[in-house]
Amino acid sequence: MPKIAMLSTGEEVLYGDIVDTNAAWLSREFYEHGFSMYKRSTVGDQKASLLQEIVMLSLNLDVVIVNGGLGPTSDDLTAEIAAEAADEQLVLNQRWYDNLKAFYAKRGKEMPESNIKQAMLPASATVVDNPIGTACGFKMRINGCLFYFTPGVPSEFKKMTLEQILPDLQAEFPAQQGKACRRLYTFGLSESGIADTLSSLVLPPEYEMGYRSYLPFIEVKLFGPAEDLEMGARLLAMVEKLLHSNVVSIDEPMLERIGHLVNLYKPTIAISEHATKGYLASWLQDNDNIAQHCAATWVLGNRTSSPLDRDSERLGATLALAGATKSNCNADIAISTGKLESDAFSVAIATSKGEWGQTLKLQRSYSTQSIKTVIATVAGDMLRRYLDNKPMFPDYGFLTRSEEIFVPQDKLA
Amino acid sequence: MPKIAMLSTGEEVLYGDIVDTNAAWLSREFYEHGFSMYKRSTVGDQKASLLQEIVMLSLNLDVVIVNGGLGPTSDDLTAEIAAEAADEQLVLNQRWYDNLKAFYAKRGKEMPESNIKQAMLPASATVVDNPIGTACGFKMRINGCLFYFTPGVPSEFKKMTLEQILPDLQAEFPAQQGKACRRLYTFGLSESGIADTLSSLVLPPEYEMGYRSYLPFIEVKLFGPAEDLEMGARLLAMVEKLLHSNVVSIDEPMLERIGHLVNLYKPTIAISEHATKGYLASWLQDNDNIAQHCAATWVLGNRTSSPLDRDSERLGATLALAGATKSNCNADIAISTGKLESDAFSVAIATSKGEWGQTLKLQRSYSTQSIKTVIATVAGDMLRRYLDNKPMFPDYGFLTRSEEIFVPQDKLA
Repeated sequence: MPKIAMLSTGEEVLYGDIVDTNAAWLSREFYEHGFSMYKRSTVGDQKASLLQEIVMLSLNLDVVIVNGGLGPTSDDLTAEIAAEAADEQLVLNQRWYDNLKAFYAKRGKEMPESNIKQAMLPASATVVDNPIGTACGFKMRINGCLFYFTPGVPSEFKKMTLEQILPDLQAEFPAQQGKACRRLYTFGLSESGIADTLSSLVLPPEYEMGYRSYLPFIEVKLFGPAEDLEMGARLLAMVEKLLHSNVVSIDEPMLERIGHLVNLYKPTIAISEHATKGYLASWLQDNDNIAQHCAATWVLGNRTSSPLDRDSERLGATLALAGATKSNCNADIAISTGKLESDAFSVAIATSKGEWGQTLKLQRSYSTQSIKTVIATVAGDMLRRYLDNKPMFPDYGFLTRSEEIFVPQDKLA
Repeated sequence: MPKIAMLSTGEEVLYGDIVDTNAAWLSREFYEHGFSMYKRSTVGDQKASLLQEIVMLSLNLDVVIVNGGLGPTSDDLTAEIAAEAADEQLVLNQRWYDNLKAFYAKRGKEMPESNIKQAMLPASATVVDNPIGTACGFKMRINGCLFYFTPGVPSEFKKMTLEQILPDLQAEFPAQQGKACRRLYTFGLSESGIADTLSSLVLPPEYEMGYRSYLPFIEVKLFGPAEDLEMGARLLAMVEKLLHSNVVSIDEPMLERIGHLVNLYKPTIAISEHATKGYLASWLQDNDNIAQHCAATWVLGNRTSSPLDRDSERLGATLALAGATKSNCNADIAISTGKLESDAFSVAIATSKGEWGQTLKLQRSYSTQSIKTVIATVAGDMLRRYLDNKPMFPDYGFLTRSEEIFVPQDKLA
């Protein structure tokens, strides 16, 4: 089992400006491909600390991925220090230099002087291509340890890792087995709630469960041998059964599941929003299938009069809004989010079968964006449940339902 | 200058499930209090790697903050390993043991057996209080280096750091000066473009410049001694002059600047969106000042007919949409985003002085959300420039302007 470390460099460690998403991503990707990270370090721009860390790691690890410090500015010292650590000179890499000139020419620009620096590499280094940026990666051995130097920009780093570094490592260390990862997404449960529920499940030795929690979903991941399809599927089905009505999608985020359902039934969808202020329409239409079926969205501002202003009961007002939106836009389905008041909000869906609505209360305080995310997710979940013919009002553990209603089509005015 | 490191521990390094926000937060807080982080490490749960890392750090650093591994489960090994690194025994800390029993009693519960572990500390350790959790922190010297062991839960970690660890360090190292940070936000420049432009600026020795780049802004930060207000202000003014029309705000994000301008002039604002799909309304109304002045937002879906469908020139259609939105909603200002076609988009603003519009082209590919962010930011910038009486069509380095138009009020139909 090769010992692998990641070294992130840059003044961000001093200023704490960047949360290291590259490192978290690499750990996840490598794990699923059978390579476990042994440790991770971050140092600033100073030559001394970067040099010391590179040398220390080269003596103790088998593979090191270095991230950052390949930019054109005077703070970017990684190539220079890599050369020093290997007791080499920096030399101009003609291939990359020509690449850079072409990159700028294609954009109708002259290459800035400072970018020439990005073509100066240690003498023994081989280029690791970067088709979408100006900083090439490079690969070399220092004290026998295999080093990959990579750009800090996440899109460039990920592409380089997936297309070049991982295949390279798989060729170098063929014994490492990739793992298959099966996921399901839940909405409405907490990590400790899920852990308690799943504690009765005994996993075979080669299987592991992991949770990734990010508002408002918890992703439950089942890792196991890639070849063992039948056992993996059976275990996943057991997990799904235990978590039942809080499972919103399997092996894809909930939004993609909704997209598939919309593509299947092809309803015209109209949206009216208050508390979500446009976020619901924006989020849903991130999915192309859904975007193709969206008619207008109406976002009510504070200076708009609407059915929501009536003193009448809040849920009734949101239901009326959904009904009005459906008929005004001549849509098959309309989704509405009402006002947010005292940490409570209503969501309603108007369909050809009737109208459903619910009022839910937040149990703790959230940021402005998090509130919009939670409300939009409830709205999306109602759309998913309607299209997939599932019960509309499950238990959302972190929300308290105070009202729910269904008015069948034949009872509507 | 004490050399300070942070060591994060836990299986998250293997699964990459948690992005290390504690580490980023600590770097920022420490920096502003005059303590620069020298490096940061993350290791998994295995005894060997944690022990090795603690020993290595103790030999090279002056202060180490260790985060995580203080929970009650069998994976939580930090206290045991700290004792081993210092060649000590674990002993029961009576004070914390009593604390724990009281913590559970107050909640009407019996303390679980596994929690007793959290009161077993290395013999020479002193407790660092944790009033909001069950894992106390502790402090001890290992090979002369000052170690603080802290809980992983962010709220507990932050409280402990601010209330106990930082004051402790300020007493231990009184020479460290807190720094003042002055920021300006730019839109339309690249990091290397900014670096080139500012290369002519010579900073006094106690000052440092930093850049934080996140789509679509670059935050330029000037760090200097907290007491030197006049010099700091003068330097910031020089930076602003050099970056001139791409500076969107100073010491606050652009959205907040727009909020202040809206609060000053109090216009009613209406929005109509196509390419941004509701994101523009959602983003702008994240600011309370702006939200209070928003009338309706109309989001055009793929199934809506609108002035944008006319074969006529795209910019003209978006301008017409803005004008129609302004009069339909009886608003003082209307902002419109047109369709996105072949990487080009139009944005228009209709006001009592007239209508402005521009068509811009993206120079590279972006994610769906990034495109919405860029277009919404251009729209927000037009609103800011209108309210602040600034030129409407600056050079946005990463966008190509193909059309621009202004139709004064008296020329409008």
